[in-house]
This record gives sequence, structure tokens and C-alpha cells, in this order.
Amino acid sequence: MADRPRRRIPEATVSRLPVYLRLLNELADAETHHVSSEQLAELGGVNAAKVRKDLSYLGTYGVRGVGYEVRYLVYQIERELGLNHDWPVVIVGAGNLGQALSGYGGFGQKGFPVAGVVDVDPSKIGSVIGGVRVRHIDELPQIVASRSVAIGVVAVPATGAQDAADRLVKAGVTSILNFAPAVIAVPRGINVRKVDLALELQILSYHEQSRSTTLRAVPGSGKSASA
Amino acid sequence: MADRPRRRIPEATVSRLPVYLRLLNELADAETHHVSSEQLAELGGVNAAKVRKDLSYLGTYGVRGVGYEVRYLVYQIERELGLNHDWPVVIVGAGNLGQALSGYGGFGQKGFPVAGVVDVDPSKIGSVIGGVRVRHIDELPQIVASRSVAIGVVAVPATGAQDAADRLVKAGVTSILNFAPAVIAVPRGINVRKVDLALELQILSYHEQSRSTTLRAVPGSGKSASA
Repeated sequence: MADRPRRRIPEATVSRLPVYLRLLNELADAETHHVSSEQLAELGGVNAAKVRKDLSYLGTYGVRGVGYEVRYLVYQIERELGLNHDWPVVIVGAGNLGQALSGYGGFGQKGFPVAGVVDVDPSKIGSVIGGVRVRHIDELPQIVASRSVAIGVVAVPATGAQDAADRLVKAGVTSILNFAPAVIAVPRGINVRKVDLALELQILSYHEQSRSTTLRAVPGSGKSASA
Repeated sequence: MADRPRRRIPEATVSRLPVYLRLLNELADAETHHVSSEQLAELGGVNAAKVRKDLSYLGTYGVRGVGYEVRYLVYQIERELGLNHDWPVVIVGAGNLGQALSGYGGFGQKGFPVAGVVDVDPSKIGSVIGGVRVRHIDELPQIVASRSVAIGVVAVPATGAQDAADRLVKAGVTSILNFAPAVIAVPRGINVRKVDLALELQILSYHEQSRSTTLRAVPGSGKSASA
């Protein structure tokens, strides 16, 4: 990790690296040892030149006629993304979404163990979700300090999102993943990513609309693809 | 909608349209009437030439020195994405995630009302979540047919994801949004989008790693940005 200088990678490339990583892990699971930039491009929905350019920031170049070595590329991307060690996260909000996220095996498995879940609702405090006991939101600073938490997850309704973000920042968190359908303001230097659960639905609706205008499909009927 | 021929829009552009839409709606809420491609590019983390190219597929071009009209652009993107009418969705899985999604105001508000929630667990059937009564998964075909549902949401654990997808396709659904941490196989012609809740965390961890290697911040301490 410290054996070479870190280069600045463009934000758009950083956003695509986790997508490549997911595809590569699926290839590795299927015992595929090599992959070409064309294959990765097709799987990832980008063009091959962009794949090669993105991966060149990792200092890696495919071999003509052979491609990239899948497992080594997984290692390189994980190292670049900082996934070679765990990043404990704290979740604000113990409602359905907070419970779903805490119980979602994917977080811990991918290197983001849930260090704590906090809420303001006295009826939720003390309950155990996803193996973690819910604590009062006032305990946020202690949780962040004792577990060296850098990333906070906002899983509260829209009206509580700004307060949750303010408390996370005050507790020392420097990155926030916001699931609330609200825009949050943070001081300079704090990273925020927003997960919009409806965004992917909008992409699907584009395809459904294309389908209905080109195929004139009968809505709701059993379609040929299911036969 | 039917007053002009539909062009094929590149998949990467389709994926960015909902992002622009979210930014534009935020601008509209803030009473901003015009936006330049440079502003949109900065907000969206892409370059301005790409914004202009993406929007040109909608048949829209900004006016030099004025930019794009925010509300008209919202209208155009919504029309292109098929958001000028509702797309009812059906959710498979009434666990925490299904409950969170059903109760998440964002779906209905964005044109994706929850037409039904189904589960296999007898203890969940009959309960009401997000205003919708949970029904048995065997009722999927009736729900899909009666409400003309085109989009299904998989909100079950990884082990049940393929079965859920098979049932949705058999019931007549043609697009699937998969929240399960598992790859699902579908017949040709069925659209699948996967939501990986850990993907955004991986982007944040990149920035946290960059921060720790460049700033040598002390993990967990109250950082300057919060002062």
C-alpha cells in the first residue's frame, strides 16, 4: 500500500471500479482466469477503450490475446479502493431501512462491518438488529471514537436527514452514505454519496417505455420470453 | 410521446438521465430557472461535453450564455424515461428490506406505486406494510395481470433470489430490480438492474484511503471540518 506513490484517479473512474470489481468477482467465482477489456466492457456496459483507460490508472495493462488476469485485477482494484482492510460503519436510524442494512450480509462481507446502530426512539434502543444492539444517538461520538469509524450511513426519513448528518460529522465521521430522499449539506472535506432507490427504476421504465412503443406489448399478459 | 419517432439512446446516457433529473429537480426546488452544461457537469461529476451530448439525444440544446431551461429539461427527461405515467411495481419479499422499500415514500412519489407485496412466509401474509397488504407469492400472476405490473422488485435473501425472479418472469413481469446480493439468470428480453448497497461504500472507502494516506488523519478523532 505504501510501496508506491498514490496517483489521483478521476472521479468517474473511481465510480466504475466497484462495478468492474463485482464483475471480476463473478468471473472468479465461475473459475474464469482471464478476461479481455472487450468482455469487461460488454458486461459493464461501457466501451473497451474506457475499460483499458480506467485500468491503466491502476498501473495495469492487459496482454494482447490474453487479456487481464482476473484474480490479480481483483487484488489491484481492492487495494486501490482501500478494501484490503475493514471500514467499520455506523448506521443512524433503526427503522426498516436501518434494520435491512444492518441485517444485509453484504456490508460485513464486503469489508464494511456494522460497528453500531443508533436511533432517537426510546422503543428501539436496546433491541438487537443484525447482531448489533441499537444505542441512543447521543452515544454516536463514543461509537465513532472507540471503533475508529470513518463512514456513517443515514437511514432516517427525509425530515431527519440533515440532523443525522450534522451529528455524524460532529462525531468525527468523514464520509456519509445518504439513503434518505433528501439533500444534506456538509462542511467542506466531508464526502457524501447518495443512494436513490428509485433511480434504477427510472432506468427500467425507459426500457419498458421503449418496449411498449416498439413491440406494442400487451401490458400484464404472459409474454413470450416466459414461455 | 407518439408525436416523434423514438431514437435509440446509448445505455450509458440512459443511466445518466435519472442523475440529471435528480439534480434538475433540486435546482427547480431552489427556484433556479436556467442551468449551464458546465454547472450540470460539475454537480453530476461528468464533463460538460458529455452533458451536452447526452442531452442532445433528447433533441435539446442549451442556449449559449443562458443554458438550459430547468423545468423544460425536467419535462423532456421525464418524457424520455417514460415517467409521464405511473409504473406500478410488485415487491417480492416482505422482510426488512421489502418493508423499507414499501414504506419508502420515494417509490410512489417518483411514479412507481407499490401495487403489491408478496412473500412465502405465512406469518407475514395479511400484514400491512407501507399501506399494502402482504399476499402469498402464488398470487403474483393475478397482481401482475390486474394492475398491469411491468416491473418486479426482488427483496429476498440471496438464496431465494433466483426463485423470486423466475416467478416474476412467469407472472409476466419484464423488468426486474434485484436487491439480493446474488446474480440472477433471466430469459432474453427481460431487463435486470442490480442494486448493490455496498457499491457506494466502496467509492467512499477510496476517498477515506486517499485521505488517510495524504492527510495522515488520526482515525476516529474529531476532525477539523467539524469545527
